[in-house]
Order: sequence, then C-alpha cells, then structure tokens
Amino acid sequence: MNTKRNVYLDMKSIEEAQKILFDLFSSHVTQVETIKVVEAKGKILAKPSIAKISSPNFHAAAMDGIAVDAMITFGALPDSPITILPNKNAFWVNTGHVLPEGTNAVIMIENLNIIDDSAVEIEAPVFPWQHVRKMGEDIVATKLLFPRGHKVNSYSLGALLSGGIFEVEVYKKPKVLIIPTGSELKQWDEIEIDQLKPGDVVESNSSVIGGLCEDFGANFEIHPMLKDDLENIKNSVKKAAELDYDMICIIGGSSAGSEDFAKPVISSLGKVYVHGITMMPGKPMMFGKIGDKPIFGIPGYPVSAIVAFEQFAGPLLLKMQRYGKIDEVIVPVIPARKIASKLGQEEFLRVKIGSVDGKLISSQLPRGSGSITTLTEADGIIRIPRNIEGISENEQVNAKLLRPLSDIQNTIVVTGSHDNTIDLLADQIRRVNGDIGISSSHVGSMGGLMAIKKGACHMAGAHLLDPEDGSYNISYIHKYLPEHKVWVINLVMRDQGLIVPKGNPKQIKGIEDLKEKDLSFINRQPGSGTRILFDYKLKTLGLSTSQIKGYENDEYTHMSVAVSVLSGRVDTGLGIQAAAQALNLDFVPIVTEEYDLIIPDIFYQTSNVQQLLETINTSDFKQRVENLGGYSTKNTGKIIMES
Amino acid sequence: MNTKRNVYLDMKSIEEAQKILFDLFSSHVTQVETIKVVEAKGKILAKPSIAKISSPNFHAAAMDGIAVDAMITFGALPDSPITILPNKNAFWVNTGHVLPEGTNAVIMIENLNIIDDSAVEIEAPVFPWQHVRKMGEDIVATKLLFPRGHKVNSYSLGALLSGGIFEVEVYKKPKVLIIPTGSELKQWDEIEIDQLKPGDVVESNSSVIGGLCEDFGANFEIHPMLKDDLENIKNSVKKAAELDYDMICIIGGSSAGSEDFAKPVISSLGKVYVHGITMMPGKPMMFGKIGDKPIFGIPGYPVSAIVAFEQFAGPLLLKMQRYGKIDEVIVPVIPARKIASKLGQEEFLRVKIGSVDGKLISSQLPRGSGSITTLTEADGIIRIPRNIEGISENEQVNAKLLRPLSDIQNTIVVTGSHDNTIDLLADQIRRVNGDIGISSSHVGSMGGLMAIKKGACHMAGAHLLDPEDGSYNISYIHKYLPEHKVWVINLVMRDQGLIVPKGNPKQIKGIEDLKEKDLSFINRQPGSGTRILFDYKLKTLGLSTSQIKGYENDEYTHMSVAVSVLSGRVDTGLGIQAAAQALNLDFVPIVTEEYDLIIPDIFYQTSNVQQLLETINTSDFKQRVENLGGYSTKNTGKIIMES
Repeated sequence: MNTKRNVYLDMKSIEEAQKILFDLFSSHVTQVETIKVVEAKGKILAKPSIAKISSPNFHAAAMDGIAVDAMITFGALPDSPITILPNKNAFWVNTGHVLPEGTNAVIMIENLNIIDDSAVEIEAPVFPWQHVRKMGEDIVATKLLFPRGHKVNSYSLGALLSGGIFEVEVYKKPKVLIIPTGSELKQWDEIEIDQLKPGDVVESNSSVIGGLCEDFGANFEIHPMLKDDLENIKNSVKKAAELDYDMICIIGGSSAGSEDFAKPVISSLGKVYVHGITMMPGKPMMFGKIGDKPIFGIPGYPVSAIVAFEQFAGPLLLKMQRYGKIDEVIVPVIPARKIASKLGQEEFLRVKIGSVDGKLISSQLPRGSGSITTLTEADGIIRIPRNIEGISENEQVNAKLLRPLSDIQNTIVVTGSHDNTIDLLADQIRRVNGDIGISSSHVGSMGGLMAIKKGACHMAGAHLLDPEDGSYNISYIHKYLPEHKVWVINLVMRDQGLIVPKGNPKQIKGIEDLKEKDLSFINRQPGSGTRILFDYKLKTLGLSTSQIKGYENDEYTHMSVAVSVLSGRVDTGLGIQAAAQALNLDFVPIVTEEYDLIIPDIFYQTSNVQQLLETINTSDFKQRVENLGGYSTKNTGKIIMES
Repeated sequence: MNTKRNVYLDMKSIEEAQKILFDLFSSHVTQVETIKVVEAKGKILAKPSIAKISSPNFHAAAMDGIAVDAMITFGALPDSPITILPNKNAFWVNTGHVLPEGTNAVIMIENLNIIDDSAVEIEAPVFPWQHVRKMGEDIVATKLLFPRGHKVNSYSLGALLSGGIFEVEVYKKPKVLIIPTGSELKQWDEIEIDQLKPGDVVESNSSVIGGLCEDFGANFEIHPMLKDDLENIKNSVKKAAELDYDMICIIGGSSAGSEDFAKPVISSLGKVYVHGITMMPGKPMMFGKIGDKPIFGIPGYPVSAIVAFEQFAGPLLLKMQRYGKIDEVIVPVIPARKIASKLGQEEFLRVKIGSVDGKLISSQLPRGSGSITTLTEADGIIRIPRNIEGISENEQVNAKLLRPLSDIQNTIVVTGSHDNTIDLLADQIRRVNGDIGISSSHVGSMGGLMAIKKGACHMAGAHLLDPEDGSYNISYIHKYLPEHKVWVINLVMRDQGLIVPKGNPKQIKGIEDLKEKDLSFINRQPGSGTRILFDYKLKTLGLSTSQIKGYENDEYTHMSVAVSVLSGRVDTGLGIQAAAQALNLDFVPIVTEEYDLIIPDIFYQTSNVQQLLETINTSDFKQRVENLGGYSTKNTGKIIMES
C-alpha cells in the first residue's frame, strides 16, 4: 500500500481563489461569430446593436377610420357637423396603414356619420396627430437597441428584426472537455443494473457537470472514463490540452490522497495555481493552466463537484463570453433549528424551504458531500460565511432558491414521522392538481409536534401510542400542544414489525427473541413513534434496554432500518412492512397502529390542505395504498379529532 | 371600402377567460415518450422516478486510512497504544473503497503511527461506523427520487443515474404552428433594408412567439406569411388543423376591424369561445377550437401579442405537459410617479427599475402596445388590477422582474436630459467591466433634478442654462436642491442647433427665420434644457412664442425631433448635432452648451459610480465621443462643483 499523500499547500478562501482565477484568464474570450438574429436566442451580443431602420418607418394609422388633415375638422359640432369627402379630403384607413399624403390625423370609425360613399359627417374636431403612430415611435434608426453583453431573449428578437437587424455578432459558446476518472466508476450505458457489484459506482458526475456547462452557456464533450492510472490520465490530458477546448475539467482525484492524480497530472504538464479552498463541500478542488488553457481538478463527490464547478469553472465560462452572472434568486428565510458551522470554512448548506403562514422556514438537509439527493431535495442553499460559527434558530438569513418561489409557496410542508404513503400522496395529488406539491421531512412523531408548535410546517404525521389506553396522538397533543387548535385526520392504519433478512434465517418470531437469540438490533431515534412503541413493547415483555444489543444505535427512517438489515449490518430492526417489502426483505408483524395527520386549524381551512384531504378520500388513493402491502385504509380520511 | 366590423360580443376578464380555456382543453396532454436520462434535461417527468439501486450500494470508506472492526480499538490511549495488523485485522483503504468484510470503521491516516508494513499503532479508539458512508446513505433502492411533473435539471441527472435509472418517461414537447398574417408584412430574409418602402413592416412577431413557445417548453414551426385574404387564411388554417400540431396561433387580424379575419376563419371552421379580454395590452385576442385543436387569434401589435400569448397560449402549453408554471420573480417596487390606470381593464405596465439607496424604484415606460422596445427596455412589469384606478407615488406595488435582480442592483440609474453619449458610455463601461450596466430615462433636465430630490436615480444629466450669467446647472441646483450634497461633473460640451432636412431646402440660417420664413417647428417638452435654451433665444431675439408655428407641439428626445424633420412633419426643430448626423440630416449650429452629470454625494462614493467616472476620463471614451460629431471633450471629467 502506497501511503504517500499530496498536501494542500496553501488553502484559499473562495474570494481569493476567484481573484487568482479570473486574473489568470482575464484575456480569455471566445471567438465572435456572426449569426442570424432568428438563431440568436440565448447568445451574448459581442457588439452593441444599433437600429438600421425606424419602426414604424412611416406615420401609421393607429385606429380604423378615416384620415384627414386635422385643420378641416376645426369647428365641427353636434349642432353644426362638417361634411368630409372620402377619396377627396378624407381617406379610409385601417390600423397600420400608411397615413395618406396631406393628412395628419385619424377619426375613429365609431365617430363617423356615414351619409353615402361620397359624404361623411363629423360632429367634433380632431387634433393633429390624433390616432397616429408616428414614424419612429417604437424605434428610431441609429437607436442603441442593446449594449454589448446583452443576452438575446424572445423579446429581443422582436426589437432586432423591427430595427432592421437580421444578423448579430455573438460570442461563440466555450467548449469544455469533461474527463471522468476513477477505477470504481461504471458507465451507465455499459452496465446491467442487476449485475452491479458492491463497490461499483455509476458514473454520473460528467452528466451533471455537462448540464451545468450548458447552464453557464457552454457546450461540452465527455471524454471516455479513465482508471486511476497516473500515466494514462496524463497522456489523455496532454492530448486534450492540444485540442481546441476552451477548458478542461478532470473529475475525481483532486483530493490529497495517494491515488489522487489530478494534481501530479496538472503539475507535470503545466502549473497548479490553487489547491484547496476553505469551503464545504468542495474543499479538495484545484485549478491551473496547461499551456494557455484553464484546467480544473473537480472533486469526485457529487455535491463537492457541483459547488466547485459553480463557484469557479462556471463563472469563468461566463467571463469568456463577457457575461456577468447567471440569475440567482435570493430570499430571506428563518431556520427552524439552530445551525452549527465550522469556523474558517464557508459552508453551502442545503435546506428545504416551506412557506408557512407567510414566512419562509428553512430546515437543514444532511451535509454529506457524497449525497446528491441533498441537492435534488433542497429548495435552497444558505451560504454560511467563514467567520461565523453558526446561525441561531429564528435568525433571518439569505438563501439562494433552487426552485421557483411560486412552487415553494404552493407546497404543503409535512413533517414528523416518516411513512411511505406520504410519497404516494405527493404523487397522487400531482396527478389531480399539477400545481400543488408536498414536501416531507422526517424528524419523528415528536419532532412533528414540535414543528407545529414552532409554526414550521402545515401538518405533521404521527403515530404516538399512549400506553395507558392504547390511543394514538390525542394525549400527546393535549400535553405538548395545549394551546393549539388542531385537527387529527387518520391517514392509514399500518403494520409495524421486525424487518428480517429474506427467508428469516434466524427464525425470529417476536421481540423476545432479541434477547433470547442475542440478535443485533438497529433502533430508531428518540422521539420517533416507532421507538416509543419499541420501548412500550420491551416494558410489557419485562425486558430492559441493556438486554438489547444495538439499542444505542439509531436510524431516522424505516427505509434506513431496512437497509441496515439488507446490508447485514444488523439482524433486525422495528419498522413498517412497506419498508421490508420495498427491499424484498421478510417481515414479522408485531402490531397494527394508527398513523394520523395533525393539522393546525389555520392551515386546515386553506384550499391546498382541503385538496389534500379530498385526495386522501379518493378510492384511487386508497387502492394505491392497499397495493403497497401492510396498510389498511379502513379509517383513512376519518376525522379523529376536530379542532 | 368595406366598413363592416366584427364586434367584441362579450369581453372576459383574464381569470374568466383562463378558466374557460383550461376547462375546454383539460384533457389535452402530450404523448409520453421514453428517453435516455442523459437527454432528459429540461423535460417534464410523466411518471414518478423510483430508484432501482442504492447509492452507495455498499459500505464505503469515507476517508483514506485503515479499516478495522471498531471493537479492536477499544481501550487505545496515548499512554497505552494498541497495535493493529495490516492485512490481518486492519486493511488499507482509500476514500470510496468497499469496506472489507468484518470491518465497520475507518481510522484516518493522519491518526496512525505506522511502525512498519506489518504493524500500526493507534492511540485512540474509534466508534463503529466512524468514517464510513453506509450503504444507501444517499439513495435507498425504491426511494422516490422525483414525483411526476418534475422538470429534470442538471442536478436531477446525478440522482437519476446514481439511482440506476437510465431511461425516463417524459412528456413530448407540444408542437405549435405559428401563422403570421398581414398584407403589410415583409419577411426579413426576403428584403433589402434600403429598399424598404413606407408602410412595409418587417415581420417579427412569429420569431418572438416562437421564442416564447420554447420558453413555455414547446417546439414551433412558422407557416409562410399570409396576406389579409379571408379564403386564403381559411384554407391554410383548415389544412394546418388536420396536421399533428398541438396548437395553432394565428398572428394578426384578431381585432374587430373589417380586415380582421381571425374570427371569421375560426368561426367557420370551428368555434370561437372568447373574443376580447379586459386587459391592456392584448385586449383584441381570441381563442377557440377547430376539431379538437386549440387555436388562438393573437393580436398583431407586438406587446399585445406577447401579453396574449403569455397569459393564455403559454400556460396551456405547460398544462399539456402537466407542468405548473414558469418561474417568475416578483419584487416590491416604489413608483417614482403616480400611475393612472383605466378602471375595468387589467393593465400590464412596463417599467424600468433602479436599485437606489436600498429601494427598488420603478419608472413607467410608454404604454403603446405597438412598441416592442417598451418591453425590451423594461426591467419589470407591474400588473394593475381591473378594479383600481391607479397607483399613488410612493405606494409599494409588486413587479414581475424581466431581468435578474442582481443585474438591476448593479445598474447605475441615469435620468434627466437625453444625450447620445450616455448610450456610448453604457457601452464603454461594459467593455471594461461586464458587470456594471447603465439605465437611462429621458425626462428632461428639470425632471432629472426632481428625480434626485426624490431619490429615484443615481445621477442626472442636465444642461440648464442660467440666462443671467450664462452658467449651466449650478444656479438651478442651488434653487431646487438646496439641501442636497451633490457633485457636478462635466460629461461633454455639445452643439445645439436647428435640425433641417438634407440640403437645407428652406435655407434656414437661424432662429429668426422661424418667424420670417413662416416655418413649422417642433418643440421640446417643458422642463427640458433645450426648451429653456430655445425660450432664452426667442427672448434675446425679441420673438414671442405665438410667432412660432408649432411651439405648442413637443417631443421628448433629440432623436424624436430629428425624426419629425426627417418624416417631413416639420421644417425644423432645435436639437443636438449628433441627432441630425445619425439620421443624415443637416444642422445649423446655434450654441455650444455644457452637459453635466449631477451626482448626489452618497452615490458619488460608490465603486460603481467611481468606475463610471474613471471610464469617462479614458482617452478611449473621449475619442469615441469626438467621433460622433458635434461634441467637444475638452472639459470631460472635469469637476464643476464639489459637494
């Protein structure tokens, strides 16, 4: 084993590194090409656009009617109308027609009293230039229509064509070569899903980075994947650097490990200018120059790759087209919980954002830079500066939106306990009404109640068993939300039980076996309904928590528990049948429980929530739930408690 | 002349008409096609995406180091290190590697004391699953990655591929046929600019509407242009309705005039459901159905066409793909002046927006629906509801942004008198710094001073002559801005004079000729520096305003005055030489005047304004100004007055 490591010589802040990067390539600009205006949408103008003709290029009638010299109408009154003579001193015109010579006003057809073909009476005068679109009213020839650097959009096409500009000079799109590296990678079109071995990773970064290249106005090509082999990567990069790409992005191997080859490759062919940025994710990134060409070492973890690209490679691509920035929408949000952050690192925190009672509430997603779903599930990104140790609960901060604000405002925020039927409901409601979304986050049943208390969600899913009387949720609501008016609606009845490997190799029959057979167990987090259920079951069986191997390890969702069983990490865990079934595991039923939605009265009345409740009551939804297995919909939609 | 007219039978509000439209075509949805994920960016998912594999599909090392069963590390201390044995009970791993069988934690390489190839000491224990990315940490197989209706973006590609999804079902883009009609239209690729006759109009709507089709997720084809001929249009629409288009848009002829054929065409082939909407611009629009196909009659005025499309045809295209809305950014703005509006009509008011001293200030652009530049120059659109008669000055209203907010925030708002060198400065500063923009509006010199007073601009251009001492601007500032700290910087010296037709056919020599030769004159608006200059000249010549034919008619810019001369509307007008020269007119110099920038001290200090002043002082800028003709830069950049 080679344990030789590269090191980050001199980490830079984002601002320092950007300055170095932009200074280094300040003279880089893509070629200018002349193209037809009708093909210019989305391109950046390399020259100012100056109108060649006026629009209209004549005085034009702005109404249907009759054109006259206003002077001949002076003195017309209802009592003493003036007669004007079509085709002599008055001329029929429609909107858009050229104003006939000698006329300077149009009388609307509604105001004419037509006697016959040769005589028309008017009962009021018109003033000069009334109902006339004057020459150049829209565009005067020589007018600056757009400055250089303008990005042509749909509207621009109209102004350019109307101004007699049929060709424009634009910056060519830069061309980026993306080189994915990593021996563990498999190309999506060369694998069979069911033959994927542990350790195989589907290569996805090149498509994401390619998509981002387009988003930053560039074209891209993807190089065949390269194994972690210094010489091979070096040869490929050397060849690529001689071709006409405007930028090269090596993905993977940008860190400081012994098999991280981006740095030695760039160093040997050119120079690395920056390696290591004080940001998270994305720290292990680098850039340099081979010949005159910018080259990036992009980290292989997907979120790191995206952040590194968006902060450095992307903006450089825009500068190569002399374009400012891409559109970002920044909104103020209020974190539902305190956010800790590391001093000395700028953090890009992915958050879900809900619009609850007029405020935008953010909740933090996991921070793992290896987890692309923390970005695809995010509604926004909060940047926490380097010199800040965190953000307090309720302290307003800015977030960059990743979804339209109108979408966020039309999303029902469901938090609390996790249940698979929430996903199904989200899909069902979209089938019926494409505008309404559901955003769910999994913080356990008690977490859901607390979110209602803080005003951080529209409703909470909960299955909190009261061991005293076997009821669900009601006693917890009385205890923890005494001053809240809430409704309780049953979503489903569901089976909880022990999730066990296919075939139940250890012949587990119930919770008592955990002790008797010395099985390893994975727990759920404190405050989750499933944990409360488990503790209750232990108590009734006379077992103590210390007798359960793994009691202290917990996961946050049923699916994670199922994965722990599937991967052989543990023998069993308590969860819902749907989770076992989804991963083709076996299931030992323990109890049928009630899973309810708890809805504050102020949200219960909104049309979005009413539509959600209507959807729950459809036979279509119930049928889909029953098909999942382990669910009963006999009480679905039933009002358990009125506010 | 046929004076027969259609009528608007029953105008509808936007909401009423949208409801009719969406109900009529509620079952219309485009076909679903299966495509490769890597080609799905921008498409709308027709089915939910469920992960087929977990990611990672194994327990993976999250650090470079050595993998162990955490149990063997328990008890390790600096004083009593534990020795672990590579390739026996410990295994070298790099980030991303599969965790070797029997191990459940990784010790970072930094924390190892490597004795030799067969022995490594550790001085602290690790806990189970430390530095391990657990199987399914990012994606658990069967997880819902995206609901139906999700628009695939760059990030989505990563989640889909990582979840083992290589193909997706998406909605096909709807296909729109655009039929431009109008006998006055000329196709851009069939004309020579210099052979364009008065009355010829370059057809531009079809390209704009085509661009908008793309913006709303559709493809489009443009039908050859059709003259205003009922039978011909009818035959073409009939044929088109039998083809596989999802929508037809007839552009032009949607009003109620005698040559407006959209209604009779649709009525004869199918049915018109709505004609006439209580909105402005865009009132004369209609939609109907031919067979099962939606067909729109889109007004021919460019802004009307855009509003009609964006309110009706565009949203229907989204619904055909079961997609909610396109992104709109709405911000609160403060109108710099009172806005009047007509009761009973919803108005789409185009405004410029400046970010001045932390507030977004809007100023109204002309309302003409025939003027595409009112949209291309707009930064936003204020919708004024039907039941409102107007908006007061300083009353906060919402505006939909047409440009990124960051652009607006990086734009220097220059108002006041109009001078061509402002456009040139805007271009020059973009050459130097692509990020800074200039937005100029023309309200006359006095209007500029008032805008400074209201805090509605960053600087004002002015050339206000004090007849007492021949000075410029200073005395006006003392009088009208007594409490404002402002700087005055000379931009240019420029020639004012009489703009006359090429060859000066009436042999005009000076202002006295206006009376003597009984010439027709076009004035500038009250409050403009040019008008003050003209009045001063009249006074010194002993002339009264009543002796000037056309004194009461005014225009707002030098270019409009020049156009009035060019079009033969008037014999002459007072303006700058640059305007005459731009339209190839002749010029009779009267005076050389000072054109200054007046800059409040709070903005003078900002880096954007400092960069603007630096640009003014470059020889590059000065050279370009001199090249325009009629300008002197001898005082350019000179500080006339310090704050």
